[in-house]
Amino acid sequence: MTDALTINTKYLLTALMHSGVRHFVVSPGSRNTPIALLLAQLAESEKIALFVDVDERSAAFFALGIAKVTLKPVVVLGTSGTAITEFTSAVAEASVSHIPLIVLSADRPQELQNNGAPQTISQTHLFSHFVKQDLELTLQDNHPDVPEYIAYEVQKLIYQAQIAPRGPIHINLPLRKPLMPDMNDDTPLRVKQLTWTMAPNIVPQNTLEALQNKKILLLCGPNESEDYSELLRSFSEKYHIPVIADVLSRVRYTHTITGIDQFIKADILNDDALPDIVIRFGATPIAGQLLGWLKKHEVTTWYVGEDAGNDHSRHASHIVPIAVANFLEQLTQIQNNSTVQSEFYTVWQTMNQKYQNQLMHNVGELSLIDAIDHFTHDAQPIFVSNSMPIRDMDNFFLGRHTHNIYANRGANGIDGVVSSAMGMAATSQEQRSLLLIGDIALFHDMNGLMMGKQYQLPLDIIVTNNNGGSIFSFLPQAQQQEYFDTLFGTPLGLDLSRIAMLYDLTYEKISTTQGLGDILRQSVVGTRIIEYSSNRQDNYEQHQDFTQMLREHFNE
Amino acid sequence: MTDALTINTKYLLTALMHSGVRHFVVSPGSRNTPIALLLAQLAESEKIALFVDVDERSAAFFALGIAKVTLKPVVVLGTSGTAITEFTSAVAEASVSHIPLIVLSADRPQELQNNGAPQTISQTHLFSHFVKQDLELTLQDNHPDVPEYIAYEVQKLIYQAQIAPRGPIHINLPLRKPLMPDMNDDTPLRVKQLTWTMAPNIVPQNTLEALQNKKILLLCGPNESEDYSELLRSFSEKYHIPVIADVLSRVRYTHTITGIDQFIKADILNDDALPDIVIRFGATPIAGQLLGWLKKHEVTTWYVGEDAGNDHSRHASHIVPIAVANFLEQLTQIQNNSTVQSEFYTVWQTMNQKYQNQLMHNVGELSLIDAIDHFTHDAQPIFVSNSMPIRDMDNFFLGRHTHNIYANRGANGIDGVVSSAMGMAATSQEQRSLLLIGDIALFHDMNGLMMGKQYQLPLDIIVTNNNGGSIFSFLPQAQQQEYFDTLFGTPLGLDLSRIAMLYDLTYEKISTTQGLGDILRQSVVGTRIIEYSSNRQDNYEQHQDFTQMLREHFNE
Repeated sequence: MTDALTINTKYLLTALMHSGVRHFVVSPGSRNTPIALLLAQLAESEKIALFVDVDERSAAFFALGIAKVTLKPVVVLGTSGTAITEFTSAVAEASVSHIPLIVLSADRPQELQNNGAPQTISQTHLFSHFVKQDLELTLQDNHPDVPEYIAYEVQKLIYQAQIAPRGPIHINLPLRKPLMPDMNDDTPLRVKQLTWTMAPNIVPQNTLEALQNKKILLLCGPNESEDYSELLRSFSEKYHIPVIADVLSRVRYTHTITGIDQFIKADILNDDALPDIVIRFGATPIAGQLLGWLKKHEVTTWYVGEDAGNDHSRHASHIVPIAVANFLEQLTQIQNNSTVQSEFYTVWQTMNQKYQNQLMHNVGELSLIDAIDHFTHDAQPIFVSNSMPIRDMDNFFLGRHTHNIYANRGANGIDGVVSSAMGMAATSQEQRSLLLIGDIALFHDMNGLMMGKQYQLPLDIIVTNNNGGSIFSFLPQAQQQEYFDTLFGTPLGLDLSRIAMLYDLTYEKISTTQGLGDILRQSVVGTRIIEYSSNRQDNYEQHQDFTQMLREHFNE
Repeated sequence: MTDALTINTKYLLTALMHSGVRHFVVSPGSRNTPIALLLAQLAESEKIALFVDVDERSAAFFALGIAKVTLKPVVVLGTSGTAITEFTSAVAEASVSHIPLIVLSADRPQELQNNGAPQTISQTHLFSHFVKQDLELTLQDNHPDVPEYIAYEVQKLIYQAQIAPRGPIHINLPLRKPLMPDMNDDTPLRVKQLTWTMAPNIVPQNTLEALQNKKILLLCGPNESEDYSELLRSFSEKYHIPVIADVLSRVRYTHTITGIDQFIKADILNDDALPDIVIRFGATPIAGQLLGWLKKHEVTTWYVGEDAGNDHSRHASHIVPIAVANFLEQLTQIQNNSTVQSEFYTVWQTMNQKYQNQLMHNVGELSLIDAIDHFTHDAQPIFVSNSMPIRDMDNFFLGRHTHNIYANRGANGIDGVVSSAMGMAATSQEQRSLLLIGDIALFHDMNGLMMGKQYQLPLDIIVTNNNGGSIFSFLPQAQQQEYFDTLFGTPLGLDLSRIAMLYDLTYEKISTTQGLGDILRQSVVGTRIIEYSSNRQDNYEQHQDFTQMLREHFNE
């Protein structure tokens, strides 16, 4: 006689597999014992990557990092109590950045709710602010319909997570003692696999015709849903469409426009650069002034993509919620006035070249970006932290060798960056990955380094250590000197060599960017910290100087 | 002309002061700039303790720790985005353990919600699962009624946080740019202070009469709401009422009953020990089997106290939601049959003495508890981590010198223990505090050590390092050797001396408990880590041995 817990849990896990889940991150606990044990057993025969991360906050961000790279749903499993609330930040980030993060939370059964039983909080609908759907499943119910029900509902939920707008899902699992599954059960499973046929993504012909003979500029924002990089690149070159590519767009390379925020800041864009129509893909660009510039110049803006539509500039007027790849394929049918478009393309390419030439004069943290750009290997995955590094990357990283850049850019938190980068690194064990991060964000998620130690993850962490939060130097409170450093600068005096020592990581320190290439070429196993010492005041001034020089360079 | 932001924020802060808030913990950010700046300015003239903690998860648990000791509302202030979700675990803990934690969250204004604006998540009602009430205040509204409205509503909310059942409150503050307040504003404030007259806590006479001539046993669970220790102690001694005092009851001393869980486990309680009536105070006792024992023996159980009523054993049949102190004072009117009660008292005191005698034979982590008991100074605040340390303390700590023991025992998480202990230590800078914690819980909240470094908090952290989660050795999965250490034991191989070095903390290591006294007597400034090396398998066996020896000792 098979016990209900064992068979239902196996149906749950098989349904997840049928839905394409191959990565599981487990934070151990007592209440989630049956799921963890049966998952570990399943992982012996099926192709599953199973990670154990004892810190739940880290675990959820680690799972998020995996999902960003694989574009697949990833499960994080936790135990009852505040362990589950620790997932909240990553779930919020997944919500805003449209990541199919699947939260499985073990819970205590109804008779232990709300009455002082230990390790019990209100978990039903806990993530209702952030998830697309949630569901509570009773795995210990032995009604004969239950296994099949679980298999169906779970596949429906994971499908929901993956259709636009993508997002996280929460499955809450109240469990009674005894919690031990039958590890010797060999009941044959009959889990029906659902297949979903999607409606074709066809753009109506009259929509396409509206683009006829228009000067078109493509604006590619952060993209974590579909890979259209090759298609876009050949499309842009063949039809001479300039592309402003956010560093997180995964389409940036040296021919796409870099530094648009600086262009606007330095006020060097003239009327030749104005398109008739901008077609936006992806999420909100990092370049903070770009959308406002489009609005100010009343440039007709379309917003295309399955998750499209969130425009806080309230300017995009035509939303096309169709996959970008499909849209681009159909767009080739109409592009025709090649002369006008070619001239427009040249305007932008000329500016782009001029801008790129200036980068070689960069110093400090700005030059570090250029060094990273030079020294990374082809298609290398790079994770970039908020708040300063991602802005610098957007302005100064040309994508000479890679466009596989990732960040937690939904809610822009600094709380789970190391763990997410570790998750990214875990998906590409055969090549080294890279993380660029400041000292404050590193501190927030130092626990994420434990995954680097335990799984020997091949990640180089470049830390710009300027002893505090450098972003605040750019904000009005920098004038309030009396309280500034205590409230905003917040120097922590971290000794990065000691952090490396604590986690048994390789440690290097550079004071100029020259040495970076040599270090990156060294053969090393596991995670490495590379400290780049910087200074908040210098960094602030170097950024101001850059904009000033850019203005002068363009007005020459 | 005073700007609305400045005057409204000042009314908000003054209302908090009027409500008794004296401790503020700030996690810096851009969006919460005006509140942080005006608070820092206020702290120069008013008696306010202002702490800056860059890690929001740590900040909220730090505030929780302060509130546990002061029994007053404590504010934690965060900035928009996942920074706020990082508060969730501490808010959940505050909810279950009835702590008046006041969350102030800066938010983005409505026009930036749900449309791709950076660092924006859904914050309205974010903590609705856990807070007693929440409120959204627009500080930039210049309608003349607004300052007065803010002052009233905030005082009402903080009052709500402090009346039974106590709990956390969330005030969400959407703010538009510009965010800089007027630091030179000197508009006189007219913030009316509300006073609340509470109905007297009078127990009806017929309720008291039901206790007449009954053998009474008091059961004091964890208490974080009112201080009735002196009253209870004199009451118990004068009227010969035995008291089973949870280690978190704040009434435990050598004459109260310790080790009740062991009594039940070893099956050494006979019918002489059965009371007619048990009167429970406080929250769910740590002794996991105690409530079940009362239920099994059908002992009439009353549950008294302002937050009373959450009984997951579903056995307490008479709930008296009246302050314990008031109840005890009135109880003195009826106690009279002193002979029966005195004999009953002697039964328990004899067992208690016998139990305490056995403790001197303890070894390993068990003996560490006794050493702590001996070497702590009078009234020393001690924070105890979940999961093993708090159970050991409940079983083996007699309270020779202090009953000021604290833990996060609402939801029993291990995620914020260090920070909460730091908050506790911050309230008693003139004497050293102590934290007892295992290596896994220490790892979860290592960031909390930063507060120890930055504020030189006088805390001794005794870490039982058994390289993993020792609680799992006591659970059924310990039999699943194939997956046990990976999924549950989770050895992290932490080098505690390196953790101490990273945070510039003093570090000591002991392998026996003998050396503990000498170390604790040493004069030291700031936070110190004292490592006690242990072993999970030994620890498991020592616990089994203790119960076995206890059984034999009582059956002699």
